[in-house]
Amino acid sequence: MGYFDNMPENNTKPHAATFLATCPDRPGIIAAIAQTLYQKGINIISSDQYSTDHKDGQFFIRMVFDLSDNQVDHQELEKDLAEVASKLNMLWRLTYSNQLKRMALLVSRYDHCLMDLLWRWQSGELAVKIPFVISNHPDLKERVEAFGINYHHIAITPEAKLEQEAKILAMLAANKADFIVLARYMQILSTSFTQHYPNQIINIHHSFLPAFIGGNPFAMAHKRGVKMIGATAHYVTSDLDAGPIIAQDVTQISHRDHVEDLKRTSRDIERNVLARAVRWHIEDRIIVHGNRTIIFT
Amino acid sequence: MGYFDNMPENNTKPHAATFLATCPDRPGIIAAIAQTLYQKGINIISSDQYSTDHKDGQFFIRMVFDLSDNQVDHQELEKDLAEVASKLNMLWRLTYSNQLKRMALLVSRYDHCLMDLLWRWQSGELAVKIPFVISNHPDLKERVEAFGINYHHIAITPEAKLEQEAKILAMLAANKADFIVLARYMQILSTSFTQHYPNQIINIHHSFLPAFIGGNPFAMAHKRGVKMIGATAHYVTSDLDAGPIIAQDVTQISHRDHVEDLKRTSRDIERNVLARAVRWHIEDRIIVHGNRTIIFT
Amino acid sequence: MGYFDNMPENNTKPHAATFLATCPDRPGIIAAIAQTLYQKGINIISSDQYSTDHKDGQFFIRMVFDLSDNQVDHQELEKDLAEVASKLNMLWRLTYSNQLKRMALLVSRYDHCLMDLLWRWQSGELAVKIPFVISNHPDLKERVEAFGINYHHIAITPEAKLEQEAKILAMLAANKADFIVLARYMQILSTSFTQHYPNQIINIHHSFLPAFIGGNPFAMAHKRGVKMIGATAHYVTSDLDAGPIIAQDVTQISHRDHVEDLKRTSRDIERNVLARAVRWHIEDRIIVHGNRTIIFT
Amino acid sequence: MGYFDNMPENNTKPHAATFLATCPDRPGIIAAIAQTLYQKGINIISSDQYSTDHKDGQFFIRMVFDLSDNQVDHQELEKDLAEVASKLNMLWRLTYSNQLKRMALLVSRYDHCLMDLLWRWQSGELAVKIPFVISNHPDLKERVEAFGINYHHIAITPEAKLEQEAKILAMLAANKADFIVLARYMQILSTSFTQHYPNQIINIHHSFLPAFIGGNPFAMAHKRGVKMIGATAHYVTSDLDAGPIIAQDVTQISHRDHVEDLKRTSRDIERNVLARAVRWHIEDRIIVHGNRTIIFT
Repeated sequence: MGYFDNMPENNTKPHAATFLATCPDRPGIIAAIAQTLYQKGINIISSDQYSTDHKDGQFFIRMVFDLSDNQVDHQELEKDLAEVASKLNMLWRLTYSNQLKRMALLVSRYDHCLMDLLWRWQSGELAVKIPFVISNHPDLKERVEAFGINYHHIAITPEAKLEQEAKILAMLAANKADFIVLARYMQILSTSFTQHYPNQIINIHHSFLPAFIGGNPFAMAHKRGVKMIGATAHYVTSDLDAGPIIAQDVTQISHRDHVEDLKRTSRDIERNVLARAVRWHIEDRIIVHGNRTIIFT
Repeated sequence: MGYFDNMPENNTKPHAATFLATCPDRPGIIAAIAQTLYQKGINIISSDQYSTDHKDGQFFIRMVFDLSDNQVDHQELEKDLAEVASKLNMLWRLTYSNQLKRMALLVSRYDHCLMDLLWRWQSGELAVKIPFVISNHPDLKERVEAFGINYHHIAITPEAKLEQEAKILAMLAANKADFIVLARYMQILSTSFTQHYPNQIINIHHSFLPAFIGGNPFAMAHKRGVKMIGATAHYVTSDLDAGPIIAQDVTQISHRDHVEDLKRTSRDIERNVLARAVRWHIEDRIIVHGNRTIIFT
Repeated sequence: MGYFDNMPENNTKPHAATFLATCPDRPGIIAAIAQTLYQKGINIISSDQYSTDHKDGQFFIRMVFDLSDNQVDHQELEKDLAEVASKLNMLWRLTYSNQLKRMALLVSRYDHCLMDLLWRWQSGELAVKIPFVISNHPDLKERVEAFGINYHHIAITPEAKLEQEAKILAMLAANKADFIVLARYMQILSTSFTQHYPNQIINIHHSFLPAFIGGNPFAMAHKRGVKMIGATAHYVTSDLDAGPIIAQDVTQISHRDHVEDLKRTSRDIERNVLARAVRWHIEDRIIVHGNRTIIFT
Repeated sequence: MGYFDNMPENNTKPHAATFLATCPDRPGIIAAIAQTLYQKGINIISSDQYSTDHKDGQFFIRMVFDLSDNQVDHQELEKDLAEVASKLNMLWRLTYSNQLKRMALLVSRYDHCLMDLLWRWQSGELAVKIPFVISNHPDLKERVEAFGINYHHIAITPEAKLEQEAKILAMLAANKADFIVLARYMQILSTSFTQHYPNQIINIHHSFLPAFIGGNPFAMAHKRGVKMIGATAHYVTSDLDAGPIIAQDVTQISHRDHVEDLKRTSRDIERNVLARAVRWHIEDRIIVHGNRTIIFT
């Protein structure tokens, strides 16, 4: 039973809302938003902004509004924000603190990333609902179910892959999954699959991309004789290992490290990097712009 | 000759201004500031905010305004900001990009922090004027003068310390020094000295404070058998090594490291940590609140 | 069921042995040991040496011998090594790769270090037997037992503490525990307890010692305004938080981090630092010399 | 004037010697070397060994011998070591602590790596002689000569490149350069040049190789949206950016970092990584094996 598990889906009293938005840069954007909030008596808990520095630059903002002690009508607030946004040609999203995202997990056999995410979820670090874990192997069933989470084994075969993916997509839809984490899922998703969830599928790759793209980075790293290895969490696009990078980290290694040592060391980096990326995604800290991520930390 | 050396003191066209402010938290602060700027057609290049999360919280903000392509009257801008600030009970500072701060350097014999700052200044990394270097030793005179900077040797003796400090204070005043960097200055400044420059004296201490306070941290670190050593840049207060911390970093060490190795390793950390703190200070990224620093990076 | 769980206690074919030794430094030590091994046809897989650099220095060595393809009589080997050691006034230990150490775990309520060690053990990262987990709280019983490990709840009360410690000592003895890991065990062990296991009790402290000794390092760190927090794994002595340090690590924090954020961040450091220290202990990589550790990594 | 500058070339009393060797692995290697030293009364200050773990493995060793208080005849010592080495099919090198290597520096216009190496040399961190600095630009002449070091400007033109390289080679030979450091030298050396100095030319590349091979890694890093940048010191082979890696390091970056910020950040990493590689080379800590480095730290 996870920390957030008995929190009602539609808790009627969100204490805060997160506003994430982007539009073409111009003077007056912050004034327009801030004015709208001020008129409703809403305090801004935090505000972080970024603009690309070209002449025709793009503006990005993340604000957290305090809703704890006021009587704001959410519909009206959203209507007013929509009006401002419309004038600014702004893409935006407002998330209330009581709306828990629904995170589906896909995994193969390696358990370190999955177990770490489940432990963090259980500890209250990750404010999400987890509708289920899907795996192309049955191995981790018992350990996932010990967390009170459903585990579905869906074997993937080359011949019937699209059909099997369709089954997964149906399950995601039926369970209203908001985003998907590939916690060392060793299957390449088809383009049709990834296009269903643009910037909503997070993968962990066991190298510091773009070095050692592909399936066996440890052997490549060992062969090249690098002095550090790393891991990369990124959004999945149709272009393998080339999607927008969310988080990376590395650690020093030496000639003494065998491939087995690299694997052990990498596991620690992978789980930390993935957890960081997932937390940022959950907390609406990431905007994807082209193939780059703007991350408000 | 440094990068910024032939930049006129009062370049008439600043391309930007940095606004640093703090006041009691309440709704409408950002709206008020943003509205003021918008009415003058000023674009906000970046805006970063922080609030303490108490009921009677404090609000902190750093904004950079674009002044490159408008005809804003600076006096009017400042008058309008002062009006807003007055209503909000706000402490604030506005710095124009063409106003270079004047950084005085104090040093004893160790040269690594000083040489690093001078090299960064010469390379254009640090947008300051350096009126002079003062040392209680004559050793580094030639090397400082090679940068085209005045070097003053003012010996410090226990008997005449206050008198000698008075001489330094007079030189600082005469040269309109804005802030002071103690680049391994091995003299303890008197309280009367430090009170002349509140939050304007940056010191580098060769340990990860609050561990190993005082004069010989390497010997203490070696004796305690720690597995990492570090350095701390902090503002100087009358309480030795206890002022607000700006930046810290550490590195792993092992039993193989003798005190000499610790010194060598530490030098690399010290110069990097100090350079980071100095850059943040120069770029108006730091607000001191109580004994803590708010740093907008 | 852990990776090493069905490995027999006295597997008759160790593939290697680890030799850990220290003696007063003098010429010929390596020659004497190497000669002894060579005469038995034993290959040295790795050899790492350290000497303190005083005139009357101390010599430390860790060697791993290859026993995979020879017919060495272990008793004879040990007898010969004992002869060499006797001449050199050497303290030494020889551990065969099939002799798994027995690691007892003590924990209170925080689960992150415990769960991490159990997961690493289950994954085969830690080559130990775990006879049991003891806790002064019943909370983690179910989760520990899911790993197939016994969980004993022994409440600690101020009045009967020595009696309760005696009970724990009896259980450790009955189960032949070789060493003890305090995986966030929030009770201070009595001197009589710690003296039973000199350099065999590993504790994790949630600060970069010697900063913030004692019970509430996060509050102290927050108050002092440090820019990094850390964790320290050390052997337990009768002097609280002052035992020989095995491993330390830190991470950068900022003014934005509340005490809750510090706790979350710290958990990741604590479990990694503790796991590293435990692995080094298991692999006979540590010699304690005075209050310092020599670690052959 | 550098720290080591007035140390005579043939100081008659080396206090230590470093022995670096590799041979096919077999039992008895350490015994043979240690026995030879013991018979001459030589104490081993440090000994570090590594073996590849294949059946037909390779053995590597670095030993430091104490020569401070004995009357060892160097010729005899070398003769005895040669005998042992011959039996073991061993490649070896013995360097006396009073034999300073001669390091030639090549640089183009970026000064950060060069100035850092010169400062470290001046401070006594790098125990080398520096016969000269060669540059394809005249820019840094005055600053190099301020260290008392000769500066030669040799322009490189596409048409006469081999001729110009021949001139450099002649200067290296005439000045008995032992190894060469490319401290941001922006010319690609010809194969004929690099073959004159196998594993004796150290280059610093401004990316974490093998990512972003080639000339403009910052633009590539910015475009790919990586979250960290790094630097790599490696020996130069005929294969551009593909030689054996000696040292690497990275740092976290964010979307806020422009290419200019990446350059500034990278400079700090480059100079530290290069200095580390140069120090290891000077101290005979590196053996190249295939395209990998064994580094005894």
